[in-house]
Amino acid sequence: MHPTEPIASSTTRALPGGRASERIRRIVLTPIAFPDPPLLNSAGAHEPLALRSIVELETTSGIIGLGEAHGGERLTGEIALIADAVRDLPVSAVTEAGARAAGLLGRERADRAFAPIEVAMLDAFAQHLGVRVVDLLGGAVRDRVEFSGYLFYKWTGHLDEDGPDEWGEVTTPRQLVQLATTLHDRFGFRSWKLKGGVLPIAEEVAGARAVREAFPDFPVRMDPNCRWSLEAAQEVARTLRDVVEYLEDPCLGLDAMSALRAAVDVPIATNMLAERFDAHLPVLTARAADVVLLDHHVVGGLRRAAALAALCEAADIGLSMHSNSHLGISLAAMTHLAAAVTGRVHTNDTHYPWNQDFDVIAGGPVSIVDGTVALPAGPGLGVTLDRDLLAEAHERYLSSDIRERDDGAYARRRVPEFDPTLGAWTIEQSGWMAST
Amino acid sequence: MHPTEPIASSTTRALPGGRASERIRRIVLTPIAFPDPPLLNSAGAHEPLALRSIVELETTSGIIGLGEAHGGERLTGEIALIADAVRDLPVSAVTEAGARAAGLLGRERADRAFAPIEVAMLDAFAQHLGVRVVDLLGGAVRDRVEFSGYLFYKWTGHLDEDGPDEWGEVTTPRQLVQLATTLHDRFGFRSWKLKGGVLPIAEEVAGARAVREAFPDFPVRMDPNCRWSLEAAQEVARTLRDVVEYLEDPCLGLDAMSALRAAVDVPIATNMLAERFDAHLPVLTARAADVVLLDHHVVGGLRRAAALAALCEAADIGLSMHSNSHLGISLAAMTHLAAAVTGRVHTNDTHYPWNQDFDVIAGGPVSIVDGTVALPAGPGLGVTLDRDLLAEAHERYLSSDIRERDDGAYARRRVPEFDPTLGAWTIEQSGWMAST
Repeated sequence: MHPTEPIASSTTRALPGGRASERIRRIVLTPIAFPDPPLLNSAGAHEPLALRSIVELETTSGIIGLGEAHGGERLTGEIALIADAVRDLPVSAVTEAGARAAGLLGRERADRAFAPIEVAMLDAFAQHLGVRVVDLLGGAVRDRVEFSGYLFYKWTGHLDEDGPDEWGEVTTPRQLVQLATTLHDRFGFRSWKLKGGVLPIAEEVAGARAVREAFPDFPVRMDPNCRWSLEAAQEVARTLRDVVEYLEDPCLGLDAMSALRAAVDVPIATNMLAERFDAHLPVLTARAADVVLLDHHVVGGLRRAAALAALCEAADIGLSMHSNSHLGISLAAMTHLAAAVTGRVHTNDTHYPWNQDFDVIAGGPVSIVDGTVALPAGPGLGVTLDRDLLAEAHERYLSSDIRERDDGAYARRRVPEFDPTLGAWTIEQSGWMAST
Repeated sequence: MHPTEPIASSTTRALPGGRASERIRRIVLTPIAFPDPPLLNSAGAHEPLALRSIVELETTSGIIGLGEAHGGERLTGEIALIADAVRDLPVSAVTEAGARAAGLLGRERADRAFAPIEVAMLDAFAQHLGVRVVDLLGGAVRDRVEFSGYLFYKWTGHLDEDGPDEWGEVTTPRQLVQLATTLHDRFGFRSWKLKGGVLPIAEEVAGARAVREAFPDFPVRMDPNCRWSLEAAQEVARTLRDVVEYLEDPCLGLDAMSALRAAVDVPIATNMLAERFDAHLPVLTARAADVVLLDHHVVGGLRRAAALAALCEAADIGLSMHSNSHLGISLAAMTHLAAAVTGRVHTNDTHYPWNQDFDVIAGGPVSIVDGTVALPAGPGLGVTLDRDLLAEAHERYLSSDIRERDDGAYARRRVPEFDPTLGAWTIEQSGWMAST
């Protein structure tokens, strides 16, 4: 028996012809912070500042490719490690760069930290070639990408601030409908995602129903982030079978999700069962969900996310896209990816309406019209940085004391008994936030 | 509950800037035939002529992209249907073209028929951009790709011909070693694949052992195409545990392969469990094999094969590449793909040494040196057609009476009791061909 070959040593072979010199010259990584409303989820409450990492990749001919990742000191440090390891590679050498990242950090950590570099490499390579990023992902099958309006329960304002923020309190069905109306008026969304896992289950059920009644033609999905017990999820699924488009991660774990899916008619979606790249395999094979929410930030970039999308289609599993608080570079990347995928496509999630006032891209925030984002014309991702806004966001990061996101600690300041245990809530006794 | 969206209507959005006019102008499909030695396998014997389909895709600016597929009237007809349906698409619109193919034929048939068009689109798009096909697949991680020497048992010559062909009879261990020596001398192969499923198991075991003894440093793999019973496969695996690199498709079906893998130390490889794109999911998830042999001709092209390669790596499953009788366009495509994949990479299979004298590419057959093929410098695939050779091969097709491959019928002309039943052979009573 012979050991299998190791990964072959990397090539530094140049691109042919006049493109031989197009390599990564340097990568600049900028941690930033931007104001975020006190949005509620099963893990707690969004803090006053959200963190992101902005990657600028400069090629030898001066092209700048952009990438955007989650924030936090650990991830930023990992991105910086990878940035060092990929310098001087051809800008096309995405796979080699990813292999170097995996060699440094192991594949799972590497995927999260490499993703913004992969996006920046594709952005730079596509610019260099004079095409769009989507053209490197198999080409566009649609010109506009549809997003859902992301409804959150939220506090009236942040804990240390006086009075309500611009959105005000959202804890009742009436307030939820008001929020949906505002988002519909501003952005034209025609489908809704309700982030649950916050209030007593009966109140969230009433919220979903109220939104559906207010917008009877618009699909509504619910996502309690695995807060519900299997029994509670079954009960909700039966109650809302004619109301919700799907339930996302209602309960915890492959077994419970499979059991739920077998027992109810409502489609079941997941992001949490299949976050990592390899974690998609058992979910797709067992068809443990009807819909998978892809996240290129987690699986190692746009190419790997597109690969998973092709497998979702082959397994006849629907597709949507997961979102964290993000800015315009990520929205552009998500739009290129979503424009490239085929199969049973659902509208995609985005936090963008909550954060776009503090974007760092030039020319103002990305427009959302009729709930859709136009595929940028390119070349590359089709977005560029506003350096003043980037400097401002970086300064905001430096002068803050937030270095890792901690929704739970923030929630405990108001609800000391906050308990983040997943898969725990029964119908009778549930909710970490009271609605009044 | 809401129905999921259908596949969005196709965009015919142009590439940006000066590339707006780069579209598919026409696709010319040429069925060809070329002489093939009487190589033996579990399905019978290779007929005197092997069939392939050559795709020439011309873009609006006159670039020619090439693709190569299996032959046969049914497949050729399906490729022609797809060719009609993708005309005028941007040459970058691989996913849209594949979706149209699936709409016409259903996904499984579409994948086989679309593959040569996908390769031709990537070839043309890469030429248009001035890069190599591998650069559209995530970039090269190696400059040369290693292939194994493909050892076949064979008849002395074809049934209607007098005397031996240039290779002569290969049915004994001594003849097998002579064949390996010839292939080593000509091409420098440093690993072997033995196609089994032909002779009594004990003789094939002796053959593998003889090759290993003659070339003690070179890995040897065996592939009886699911001819062996589970018990026979267990026995062979134990007997050859220090001899073979892996056993490919020793027995039939996911259950038997999983049971075998659990019972023996020898790595188990498969092509037949995971031929179709979606069939890879259960194999990767259950880790039903240690090595998967990808085939871009079957899974719908190079992009889909590269997606599967990434998943194999994530599942820590080794990679090799499957081959049928093929010519230089397919060899170039396989080389670009194999240059792009990471993970536990094994040498790849190729029939090319058996067929390269009748290739249709310009400049003579692709060189195999030290068992390796250099990644073509591009642009595109890096191969072009010799139109005289193509015309000759097409004429050979037209004047022959072979329209679908039928190894079994050909075998029955010599061995009337030939029985193609898979998974049937015990150690004691096996082999459809006698060795003498």
